[in-house]
Amino acid sequence: MLTNTRTTRIEWGDCDPAGIIFYARYFAIFETSTTMLIERALGMSKFDYLKTYGFLGHPLVETRARFRLPTRYGDEVSIETAVVACSTSSFKVEHRLTKAGALAVEGFETRVWAIRHPDDPTRMKSRPMPPEIVARLTQGGV
Amino acid sequence: MLTNTRTTRIEWGDCDPAGIIFYARYFAIFETSTTMLIERALGMSKFDYLKTYGFLGHPLVETRARFRLPTRYGDEVSIETAVVACSTSSFKVEHRLTKAGALAVEGFETRVWAIRHPDDPTRMKSRPMPPEIVARLTQGGV
Amino acid sequence: MLTNTRTTRIEWGDCDPAGIIFYARYFAIFETSTTMLIERALGMSKFDYLKTYGFLGHPLVETRARFRLPTRYGDEVSIETAVVACSTSSFKVEHRLTKAGALAVEGFETRVWAIRHPDDPTRMKSRPMPPEIVARLTQGGV
Amino acid sequence: MLTNTRTTRIEWGDCDPAGIIFYARYFAIFETSTTMLIERALGMSKFDYLKTYGFLGHPLVETRARFRLPTRYGDEVSIETAVVACSTSSFKVEHRLTKAGALAVEGFETRVWAIRHPDDPTRMKSRPMPPEIVARLTQGGV
Repeated sequence: MLTNTRTTRIEWGDCDPAGIIFYARYFAIFETSTTMLIERALGMSKFDYLKTYGFLGHPLVETRARFRLPTRYGDEVSIETAVVACSTSSFKVEHRLTKAGALAVEGFETRVWAIRHPDDPTRMKSRPMPPEIVARLTQGGV
Repeated sequence: MLTNTRTTRIEWGDCDPAGIIFYARYFAIFETSTTMLIERALGMSKFDYLKTYGFLGHPLVETRARFRLPTRYGDEVSIETAVVACSTSSFKVEHRLTKAGALAVEGFETRVWAIRHPDDPTRMKSRPMPPEIVARLTQGGV
Repeated sequence: MLTNTRTTRIEWGDCDPAGIIFYARYFAIFETSTTMLIERALGMSKFDYLKTYGFLGHPLVETRARFRLPTRYGDEVSIETAVVACSTSSFKVEHRLTKAGALAVEGFETRVWAIRHPDDPTRMKSRPMPPEIVARLTQGGV
Repeated sequence: MLTNTRTTRIEWGDCDPAGIIFYARYFAIFETSTTMLIERALGMSKFDYLKTYGFLGHPLVETRARFRLPTRYGDEVSIETAVVACSTSSFKVEHRLTKAGALAVEGFETRVWAIRHPDDPTRMKSRPMPPEIVARLTQGGV
């Protein structure tokens, strides 16, 4: 299955008055990691793959996270991301965020492929994922 | 059990290029709702209850969310929040975010009571919740 | 000239490890206030006015802010917003954010009217504001 | 004078329904750049320099930004940051954010050195900057 690892730094503006990261920020970090994983699978930027495949995004239908160790501003963290399941209707992604090798946060996502609703441009509609996308997400990318 | 309902509006800056809310924003909305619930239970602001009870916060150890309907800028949403379980070591909170009466997002949280670590002021440590806090969270507040 | 006043509360997740609001959050507060001012001027939601007038938004070309008093989580603040100048090419907005009557932050914005670039849907282009919009912004709305 | 250059990527969650960055995000980017500049000047992390010098932070008293070109998700941007003035009471920082070599945003900051108010731990108070900090900010760091 497809994987991606990247590092980032927790910043002052990510942290709350307890001096640790405000937990909602982890979900922005995970979104970026999932995007990078798909960019790698498809060999193009998100801007290009939305245009190329004519869809709106890959919104979450469910997510879960476990917070094991706090992180704080200045911490360099590593995020390992993997596609762990993929069908034509949805795919599952897992994230492991570590700090100095210790597991700090785990994230679990279920996402779908969405297009603009044909009857109402202000709504979305999920649709089957193109077979070539499924192939790339499950076989490790271009 | 203790409950709280509030309304808020999804704003332009909360939304992403698909025109819908960026999902990480829901977790900031849930954090505010949980804070308001505890403020109501204890009859004082968070600033005051952290000082009064000498603790650092009520960080999450686990959270889960299900996204059923998208929301977009300008949407007025309602968030119903309830404590659904509470022991001396942790408490569970659930959120139901609705839009025009329809369930859009459900959030599930497990939180602990944390103090500054006695041996290292830069770390946190969970500790038993004071019995009066447990009583107020389970009996509906002051 | 058109004015609008609203209140909001500074939340835990808006604040940084110094215990006060992270300054970037003020700009999200100002954006919401400007949107509400224009919604009031035009008598419709932003979602509707973007569609009705076929434009993309009213991006900033310049902003400035002065921070006089810090705010922290739990603070109820009031934001008074006014259009202070308006031509067909741009308009200026000022915000005064107060806490318990004391001026905490002033914001100054210059914004333009933008449409999607006709030659490149991924770019924006500023264009003259419709005379009726100018009239409403300078005369106080519907 | 002290300078620092870094690169970052604009992400999906940083962007708004017009498809471009939500402008408040630039201020978080600038905050990180200023922090990195001071970390470099003092040869230690922000966490360490706050502790070493016993202060609370370097809050803004004024900021200004000019937005020349929009950026969107996937854009790699470069931020050049420089201390342009420094006295014992305040210092000025400028940021130039470029995209593919073109100037996209300029940021201008005036910041002070702040400690916890001696009479009220919930308030801040500005105080003179230590001469060695002034020396390092004006002479280029360790």
